[in-house]
Amino acid sequence: MPTRWTLDPDRCFDPDPRQRDVARSLFDGVRDLPLVCPHGHVPPALLADDAPLGDPATLLVVPDHYVVRMLYSQGVAMEDLGLPRRDGGASESDPRAIWRRFCEHYHLFAGTPTGVWLKQELIELFDVEERPSAENADALFDHLADRLADPAYRPRALFERLGVEVLCTTDAATDPLALHVQLQQDGFMVRPTFRPDAVIDPTRDDWEASIELLAERSGVAVDDYDGFVQALQARRTAFREAGATATDHGAFAADVRWLEPDTAAATFDRLRSGRADALDRGRFASHMLAEMARMSADDGLVMQLHVGSLRDHHQAVFERFGRDVGGDIPVAAEWTRALRPLLKRLGADPGFRLVLFTLDESTYGRELAPLAGHYPALRLGAPWWFFDSVLGMERYLDATVETAGIYNLAGFNDDTRAYPSIRARHDVWRRVSCNWLAGRVVRGLIDEDVAPTLAKALAYDLAKSTYRLP
Amino acid sequence: MPTRWTLDPDRCFDPDPRQRDVARSLFDGVRDLPLVCPHGHVPPALLADDAPLGDPATLLVVPDHYVVRMLYSQGVAMEDLGLPRRDGGASESDPRAIWRRFCEHYHLFAGTPTGVWLKQELIELFDVEERPSAENADALFDHLADRLADPAYRPRALFERLGVEVLCTTDAATDPLALHVQLQQDGFMVRPTFRPDAVIDPTRDDWEASIELLAERSGVAVDDYDGFVQALQARRTAFREAGATATDHGAFAADVRWLEPDTAAATFDRLRSGRADALDRGRFASHMLAEMARMSADDGLVMQLHVGSLRDHHQAVFERFGRDVGGDIPVAAEWTRALRPLLKRLGADPGFRLVLFTLDESTYGRELAPLAGHYPALRLGAPWWFFDSVLGMERYLDATVETAGIYNLAGFNDDTRAYPSIRARHDVWRRVSCNWLAGRVVRGLIDEDVAPTLAKALAYDLAKSTYRLP
Amino acid sequence: MPTRWTLDPDRCFDPDPRQRDVARSLFDGVRDLPLVCPHGHVPPALLADDAPLGDPATLLVVPDHYVVRMLYSQGVAMEDLGLPRRDGGASESDPRAIWRRFCEHYHLFAGTPTGVWLKQELIELFDVEERPSAENADALFDHLADRLADPAYRPRALFERLGVEVLCTTDAATDPLALHVQLQQDGFMVRPTFRPDAVIDPTRDDWEASIELLAERSGVAVDDYDGFVQALQARRTAFREAGATATDHGAFAADVRWLEPDTAAATFDRLRSGRADALDRGRFASHMLAEMARMSADDGLVMQLHVGSLRDHHQAVFERFGRDVGGDIPVAAEWTRALRPLLKRLGADPGFRLVLFTLDESTYGRELAPLAGHYPALRLGAPWWFFDSVLGMERYLDATVETAGIYNLAGFNDDTRAYPSIRARHDVWRRVSCNWLAGRVVRGLIDEDVAPTLAKALAYDLAKSTYRLP
Repeated sequence: MPTRWTLDPDRCFDPDPRQRDVARSLFDGVRDLPLVCPHGHVPPALLADDAPLGDPATLLVVPDHYVVRMLYSQGVAMEDLGLPRRDGGASESDPRAIWRRFCEHYHLFAGTPTGVWLKQELIELFDVEERPSAENADALFDHLADRLADPAYRPRALFERLGVEVLCTTDAATDPLALHVQLQQDGFMVRPTFRPDAVIDPTRDDWEASIELLAERSGVAVDDYDGFVQALQARRTAFREAGATATDHGAFAADVRWLEPDTAAATFDRLRSGRADALDRGRFASHMLAEMARMSADDGLVMQLHVGSLRDHHQAVFERFGRDVGGDIPVAAEWTRALRPLLKRLGADPGFRLVLFTLDESTYGRELAPLAGHYPALRLGAPWWFFDSVLGMERYLDATVETAGIYNLAGFNDDTRAYPSIRARHDVWRRVSCNWLAGRVVRGLIDEDVAPTLAKALAYDLAKSTYRLP
Repeated sequence: MPTRWTLDPDRCFDPDPRQRDVARSLFDGVRDLPLVCPHGHVPPALLADDAPLGDPATLLVVPDHYVVRMLYSQGVAMEDLGLPRRDGGASESDPRAIWRRFCEHYHLFAGTPTGVWLKQELIELFDVEERPSAENADALFDHLADRLADPAYRPRALFERLGVEVLCTTDAATDPLALHVQLQQDGFMVRPTFRPDAVIDPTRDDWEASIELLAERSGVAVDDYDGFVQALQARRTAFREAGATATDHGAFAADVRWLEPDTAAATFDRLRSGRADALDRGRFASHMLAEMARMSADDGLVMQLHVGSLRDHHQAVFERFGRDVGGDIPVAAEWTRALRPLLKRLGADPGFRLVLFTLDESTYGRELAPLAGHYPALRLGAPWWFFDSVLGMERYLDATVETAGIYNLAGFNDDTRAYPSIRARHDVWRRVSCNWLAGRVVRGLIDEDVAPTLAKALAYDLAKSTYRLP
Repeated sequence: MPTRWTLDPDRCFDPDPRQRDVARSLFDGVRDLPLVCPHGHVPPALLADDAPLGDPATLLVVPDHYVVRMLYSQGVAMEDLGLPRRDGGASESDPRAIWRRFCEHYHLFAGTPTGVWLKQELIELFDVEERPSAENADALFDHLADRLADPAYRPRALFERLGVEVLCTTDAATDPLALHVQLQQDGFMVRPTFRPDAVIDPTRDDWEASIELLAERSGVAVDDYDGFVQALQARRTAFREAGATATDHGAFAADVRWLEPDTAAATFDRLRSGRADALDRGRFASHMLAEMARMSADDGLVMQLHVGSLRDHHQAVFERFGRDVGGDIPVAAEWTRALRPLLKRLGADPGFRLVLFTLDESTYGRELAPLAGHYPALRLGAPWWFFDSVLGMERYLDATVETAGIYNLAGFNDDTRAYPSIRARHDVWRRVSCNWLAGRVVRGLIDEDVAPTLAKALAYDLAKSTYRLP
């Protein structure tokens, strides 16, 4: 009989007894603070509909690209994990079979953040008592299905149980926002985030269609560049009225550079009439990022910029399964030169706030911390994606705090689609940041009496203040 | 009188008592596993001839570029270390004088992996009891010479004493392979590795001559591109028949890109007729790497790719002493874009396996771990060269495991020319990886009951399975 | 009532009891060694004049760009910190008001090296007993003003109290050097360092004016390239006669490449006659760096090269407040290819010594340590600027020692304008390096009996030998 699978109450903490004592004490002070979630990908419909979360495989395996990629890398076909094929080809439709494959390969997650999150989620939220394995896969499936059928596991009930104070979603610029309005009327603090990539980046396939939708949604004719800008401003206003405090932008590189107004207008016309080339498209995308910054300085929406992922690296997987299934790979980033034109104009503008996210850790200490340690408008976003992990967080704090200080960081965000894992993710950050502070305290580098304030800042305050959440 | 020079039985382990206990226990489980050596540079003749290993200086100083470069960097002339000059100029010919210079400068190795390996080798294998110094240089020389004259220190006797299960050598594509056949007949598991750089890279001076030799060795006329490809395939077959399971490739950059078949054939003709330019040469080398990948997918030989060294950086040293004397310097690497064409075609091919090695640690977490955590064909090679060190290994595990998991790593290889140091090198890896796992265990991030399996995987299983060793 | 603000006697040391014991013991052996300061920016006039150091704000806040940038990044205007505007616009003129703003924001320095240095300086040198805060700002100001009025806080008195053995300043190539001569006559070992950026870099605005001054100061007519070179050599001789043992060079990139002599002369003529373009300027600057190296090989002045800062990144701040106020941001560096021409010619020249400094930590292990571990002329400079911090030093030692060894490092330099902080900065380095060595000792990787010698090398010997200080 297997021993019971348990959570170490001191997980993430260094083993040194003195550091552990300080870490425990700091963590006790922040463990139960409400969760501030300023950036993530939970669909608002999940909470608006409040339907049961579904079977274990459809909830925990199929939509989680961290899980899918790891199994795929070790030879499990994505079809066998139930990922729908774009060509309508066959995929596994039996959730139990998918779950079994996941359990058979559970050892692959040893030492990964996915393993850490899953363990906490399974034990704390779902009362699982054994590590998943080929042997217990079926029993576990039944156990989880049982729990998920319980109304206590409905999304709205979990919102409270997880302790969420505010949850920001990520929404297309053309989103009708009706769900957010409804949720707020029902008393759930779910805020939209303005994500205009599809409408401002003409290098995308869906740009034309998105522009049509933008015109429709905004009620502004998008016949020329002026109309385009007005439509965007109308949508930003609608987002603000629906509770948004931030925008979000993904880009391959950080080049943000204004075109001359006439050039911008002429480029827009070329784009719309199909006479634009690749250079036009790239320059217009970069210009529109700059315009989003200008509008942020005006309307106060905090601008988030995520840079450096080569999306859909594996063409065959993209063609068969589409985006966001684990085939996005980072590249080296450059910030110092790329952001200079933007910061020249807005780096000290009190209305402007820019939160930067990188997948290139070598830029933390070399570029991002020095930038954030100078420009009033800048804050450093939480460790992103592959680096939302125990060691990733430690390297982030190691590389940024000495140069930028604690107060130029943006706190934490969970960036997740996996709604039930939210608490586990914040828990890791709170533990790691408390342990990191404890390490500084026992080395005499941070005064012990100020450490609790810093721990609370990292766990709660900085996320709220950075994102201008009330 | 100096105190006795001893090995710390807990060397490489963190000092924290709890972590040390777990590390010890994990290491106890792997310490005596046989050594799997899937990549290295021990000359097969060493074992085939089974001649005495020579005097201490000729064994431990002259051929070890780690040793030579360190002494050279502090002002010791390479001539004075006995390195033969290509122009026939004088070099120190007295091994005892060379050994004395080495001992006088032994303090330079404090904190380096060379220091760690030498210490273990001298104490464990050669029963040395004092740290080398100017004072004891002569006595040490005599002591070592004594040991080396003993038949127990012959290469074949050491093979057993070192506990080698399988030793893969690195061999020119034109190698006759007779020594490997003989060694296997004599019961020594020494396998060749197909290293075709000289025949597939026309940027090298020796390309023309190597092509002639390739034709001779393969028995295939290399009159045109088709013949060239057939000759290569014939040699790959010969290597497989002689026990090879892998190929090895060194390249300045990771660009691997097929030419159109016609273009490849025409470029080959231009190269052979002396009408090719630098661009032709570079493109053809990149194409042939891609072709090697294609053949690997067919014949199952595991492909190793080592990228990012600017060879013979110091021209004067190269001109006087030739290659591989410590003047190779790394440059920044790029993998995400460079490998995309190759992985598009073969990244999910079940016959293909590619093991990647880098000298640019910033690519571990940014590019290599995300790639290996997605593509089924990829495995991450062991920390290479300058990073085959205690801290290099720790940074490697820190930067890769969270993203790629343990099971997308390729285990360890010693990559050494220094035959008697093999055990010390594996010992460091086994200690460091056990200590790393122990750190995860005491922080509650890896379940203690699975850690022994992971330790064995890193010490033994992954090297065998990655390299398809039976 | 606040508890007394005290220094942890074990600050910077790891908490593990065994490591801490070894670290303490190593630190005891180096704590009181005299300070060797081979590179810094203390104005020689400070010591020559020996005037009182001024009020607390003018001493500790206004001129310290680490302090200014952190407050500025959190919304404090530079005017309100008393920085003089170039346009003569109003700036805060009340030191007490500036000091109050600093104290109100003191929490921003938690976890930063500035916080560590200030704490030690305030407590050890100025007997402060409370952490600065809004509440105690005025009392602290009075306390510090009191101390600063005491003759014991005059620069010359502090020279002794800080324990400085030798202090090297950084001086324009056109500096008259009279102050250094005077200081040496008065028994203070203050040496100049030849910093010719203004005269050898025609990309600078002040190049023309600097050339005129060079001619005047050297007494050599700078009518053509030959005269220019002779004038530089004359100044180098004057610096050597005034006690200089080193030169210092700042460059955006490490490209150092000779022009053909004729080309250099023709370019100089074009530059002087206003017919040069940007390419000319860049190539000539690179050529003159190479010439500086050639002269160093001749006259033995140790060459320091600092690479990789994009100066005055924030144009508005530069225009309003000028250089060196916290708006310089690093970029990625490349050394392997860039230094090859220089090292080809001088890398093994016994007269030449080159000390390299980087702001791109990814080059420590990838390029700089391999280069320094081979070329006799190279030494690795101390962790620079943002990396002159506890974690920065640890990463530096982690990334360089295994490859380059201890003896290819250049020891420490404080690089500071903040004269009273010198001791605190050396103290951090000595503590961190002792703790780092202790970590290697308790892990069995450095023999305990050699560690004290290594600690002394890092604290004292290497700085002296690298910079050829007698």
